[in-house]
Amino acid sequence: MPRGGWLDGALGVIYGLEIARARSEAGEPGPLGVDVISFADEESTFLELAGSRSFCGSLSDSDIDGARNREGVQLAAALAEAGWAEHPRARLDPSRHVAYLEAHIEQGPRLEAAGRRIGVVTHIVGIRRVQVTFRGQADHAGTTPMHLRRDAGAALIDFCHDLRARLEKAGAAESVWNLGRVSFAPGAANVVPAEAQVLIEYRDPSAAQLDRIDAEISSAVEAADGRGDVRATSTAVAEVPPTPLDAELAELIASAAQGRGQQPLRMTSGAGHDAMMLSPHLPSAMLFVPSIGGRSHDAAEDTAEEDIVLGAEVMADVVQELAKTTSPDA
Amino acid sequence: MPRGGWLDGALGVIYGLEIARARSEAGEPGPLGVDVISFADEESTFLELAGSRSFCGSLSDSDIDGARNREGVQLAAALAEAGWAEHPRARLDPSRHVAYLEAHIEQGPRLEAAGRRIGVVTHIVGIRRVQVTFRGQADHAGTTPMHLRRDAGAALIDFCHDLRARLEKAGAAESVWNLGRVSFAPGAANVVPAEAQVLIEYRDPSAAQLDRIDAEISSAVEAADGRGDVRATSTAVAEVPPTPLDAELAELIASAAQGRGQQPLRMTSGAGHDAMMLSPHLPSAMLFVPSIGGRSHDAAEDTAEEDIVLGAEVMADVVQELAKTTSPDA
Repeated sequence: MPRGGWLDGALGVIYGLEIARARSEAGEPGPLGVDVISFADEESTFLELAGSRSFCGSLSDSDIDGARNREGVQLAAALAEAGWAEHPRARLDPSRHVAYLEAHIEQGPRLEAAGRRIGVVTHIVGIRRVQVTFRGQADHAGTTPMHLRRDAGAALIDFCHDLRARLEKAGAAESVWNLGRVSFAPGAANVVPAEAQVLIEYRDPSAAQLDRIDAEISSAVEAADGRGDVRATSTAVAEVPPTPLDAELAELIASAAQGRGQQPLRMTSGAGHDAMMLSPHLPSAMLFVPSIGGRSHDAAEDTAEEDIVLGAEVMADVVQELAKTTSPDA
Repeated sequence: MPRGGWLDGALGVIYGLEIARARSEAGEPGPLGVDVISFADEESTFLELAGSRSFCGSLSDSDIDGARNREGVQLAAALAEAGWAEHPRARLDPSRHVAYLEAHIEQGPRLEAAGRRIGVVTHIVGIRRVQVTFRGQADHAGTTPMHLRRDAGAALIDFCHDLRARLEKAGAAESVWNLGRVSFAPGAANVVPAEAQVLIEYRDPSAAQLDRIDAEISSAVEAADGRGDVRATSTAVAEVPPTPLDAELAELIASAAQGRGQQPLRMTSGAGHDAMMLSPHLPSAMLFVPSIGGRSHDAAEDTAEEDIVLGAEVMADVVQELAKTTSPDA
């Protein structure tokens, strides 16, 4: 994330390095080793989750060939320039790995609001995006009487107002939605909007709940279509399914937190993480530390130093517990 | 107007030329002469109403120096390139002119809807534009619970919905309004909008009615400000006062239309015209002919051929009537 915060992503890598270093200094107690991995480009400078997709074998050569950053630079060219073009890619080896652990700053205000210092992620939300387009007619906004207009902008306003009320009712406890981008065309003070678009994003840990929100949007689009002679259509533009994380590993984190005198908060991650890619292949778990003021994707992002330390200690305890109970094949 | 219609502006010039030519061929009956003028740039390629402002002495050298087109070309440079830099500017001479007559395509559907072929303009509307800005906070749209958001986009949607209902009630018979441009920033699917803006334009022939609409907008902004912890502010960005045209001249056009078997429609012009500039200096009047399908600012703009001819005949009759009754100083 350009101009993002200092902990988003980096925190979990530093935890891994510190735990590996500490275990190495202590003579690697137990049969379990720790691999530390820093996945590139989770935030989609070139391609969302590029590093973890590559690690899990879900990144094809054509994905790499098609990926460009905002400046139009190809991912393949950037890899070559960085000297990585010929480097063999690291790959997940299920016979080598028994679990995937990821620590992260929460990127939200829930831990702080609840007065908790450790979050245990039970699910990562599913994300869907729908674009709704309204088509009317461009007319002179001075000379066309109000009742003769086919105003795509007005149709969008009424639709969004209606949709917000519907989602208030249809939203479940963990549902969130965002009307983040709106555009009117031609976009002039003196021209009745001919076309208007809104991009709707919604997230929930339950696919069934995402389906309910889908149905609500479809119903609102249907109600809007033809009102005032404006046509309304919708297109699904993105879908990421919800990811449940490993329940046993989650309880291991919760126990470790309790062992450090903490009451952990079991919570859903509203943001996507590399754990989404790993989870189908390996038991996967995530630990959250609080975001001060809930700030994220902003240079103001921060976590109290004692919470950063506590998170590392809890994660180290989890690794130690896994080492006690696990006898890996290799 | 780039890619505009063939009659918008040109029609009135051709009427003037045709009337002058016909009167010249007939030996200029009566003491009244006809000056024909084609005002440049009413549509603001460089500067709105530039030609008529120049003619009326309302265009300063600094106005000309400051004016540029969309490509950044200065008006002064364009005049020089066209060979007009040193040319003396034509100026209105009230001792020479007794009236200003302008014919125009209606640019709207009213004449067609009323089944009339001649419109007599009694007023040109006043135009005001207000920009309303909402300021909230950019937050991660996946991790920030709905109740903790300061969503500037949602505030804009609610405001626009409220305002549309208010204007339905507060609008007078001839009031029109348009929410033609809306923007959300940063404008990303996964970021709660931090800022949102809407540009509101409204027109009415009465300044008092424009004041009532102003008050309604202010009241809606006040109601929105602070709702959901989003701030709302408004700024007036443009104002053109309403222009009443000359009542006696208007009746002269109406009589001439009746003389040709027509029932003219007395109407307000919802669009601006050069007559706005002339009206404070000379008795001014406008005649409209119908727009087929109300189309304007579009290559599809047209008027039935017999209506174009009828408009010219009515205007010629008006000039003839003025010639009978007027004894100019020079």
